[in-house]
Amino acid sequence: MATKRNESISDAVIRRLPRYYRHLSELLANNISRVSSGELGKEMGLTASQVRQDLNHFGGFGQQGYGYSVSNLRDEIARILCIDMKHRLVVIGAGSLGGALAKYPNFAKRNLEIIAIFDQDPSVIGKKIGDLIVLPVTKLDDFVKHHPVDIGVLAIPKDQAKLMAKKLSELGVKGIWNFSSTDLEMEETAAVVENVHLTDSLMRLTYRLHN
Amino acid sequence: MATKRNESISDAVIRRLPRYYRHLSELLANNISRVSSGELGKEMGLTASQVRQDLNHFGGFGQQGYGYSVSNLRDEIARILCIDMKHRLVVIGAGSLGGALAKYPNFAKRNLEIIAIFDQDPSVIGKKIGDLIVLPVTKLDDFVKHHPVDIGVLAIPKDQAKLMAKKLSELGVKGIWNFSSTDLEMEETAAVVENVHLTDSLMRLTYRLHN
Repeated sequence: MATKRNESISDAVIRRLPRYYRHLSELLANNISRVSSGELGKEMGLTASQVRQDLNHFGGFGQQGYGYSVSNLRDEIARILCIDMKHRLVVIGAGSLGGALAKYPNFAKRNLEIIAIFDQDPSVIGKKIGDLIVLPVTKLDDFVKHHPVDIGVLAIPKDQAKLMAKKLSELGVKGIWNFSSTDLEMEETAAVVENVHLTDSLMRLTYRLHN
Repeated sequence: MATKRNESISDAVIRRLPRYYRHLSELLANNISRVSSGELGKEMGLTASQVRQDLNHFGGFGQQGYGYSVSNLRDEIARILCIDMKHRLVVIGAGSLGGALAKYPNFAKRNLEIIAIFDQDPSVIGKKIGDLIVLPVTKLDDFVKHHPVDIGVLAIPKDQAKLMAKKLSELGVKGIWNFSSTDLEMEETAAVVENVHLTDSLMRLTYRLHN
C-alpha cells in the first residue's frame, strides 16, 4: 500500500489518527475483521465520507464495497503514527504524576518503553516505582549518553521545565512530552514538544458544565 | 463589563481560554499589570488581531491604545471558564493515576476541590492519599446523596468506564472527566464529558518526531 508519508497533513487529521487506532484495536479485540467507513465513522462520530477522506491522505486502504480489513488498517495507522518502532522514554520528576506515568500500562502496547525515572529529591532517589529505581537527576547526562532516549517526559514544576527541556534537547533527545504547567516552544528547545495541560482540560469541562 | 455568556463560541476559542488564563497568571506573578494584545499574542503564538477577536467574543475588555488590565482580564476569563465558582470532584479509581490526580496541586488554585476518592480493591480501600482516605465504591451512592458533587473523575479500566459514567450521571453528577481509554459519548451519559487520552497525545508526539 502506497502511503504518502511526507505529505503535509492537517493537525485535525493527525489528532484523529490515534482515535482510529483505538477504535480499530477495540474491533480487533472483539474479533471483527472487516469494517466499512460508515460503521467506523458511526463509532467515532464522523461521516463515512470524512473517514474515507481522512484515510485517503495516506493513500487509502479500503476497497469499494468491501470496507477495510481491520487488522491491516490498524497496522497501517500504527506505521503512520510510528508506533511500529520502539521509542525509549525517560521520566523527569518522580512525584505522584511522574510515578503514575512511569507505571502507565498502555504505553508498552504501543512500543513505548519507559527506561528510567529521575528526581532531584534525596528522599525519593533510590525508591522503586514499578520496575524502575528512581535515579538522581545528576546522572541524567551520563545515562542519556549511554542509552538511546527518544522522548523525555517532564513531570516537574514549571519553573524547571524550560531548562530541563533545553538540557534534554542538547543531549540529543528529540521529543518532549511536557506535563509542566507552561507552554514549551519548539524554537527554544529544537525538539518536538507535546504539551499536556491537565487543568486546561478541566477548565474546558467547567466551562461546558455551565454553557 | 458586558460579556455575552450564552453566545455560541467556537471550540478553538474555548480551547485557548485556559491558555490565556495561564499566561495572564504568569504575568500577574511577575507583577505586570497591563498587557497589549500584541504582547499577549506573542507569548501565545497568536497575532494581536487574533487575541482581540478572541476576547471580543466575550464583549472585549481592552481599551484602544492602553491594552488590557492583566488582573481584570484574568478575573473575567476565570468567570467565563466558571472557575470563579467552586466545583467539587470525586475520583473513581485509586490506582497510580487516580492517586496522582487526587493530589494534583494546581486544582485548588482554580476552585476545584477533590472531596473523595473511591476504589473497589480491598487492598487499596482505607489507604491515605494526600488528605483523603480511599473509600469503597459501594459507598459512592450514599456519598453523592449527602455531598454535592459536580465532576466525577474516571481513572478506571475502560471496560468499567461506561457503566460508572452512567451511574454518576444518574446520581446527578453533571461532569465527567474521563481518563479511561475509551471515548464516552454525552448522549449515553446525559453528562458533559471531557475525555483525556494520554496515549493519543503521546502518539501525536511519535508521529511528529518522524514527520
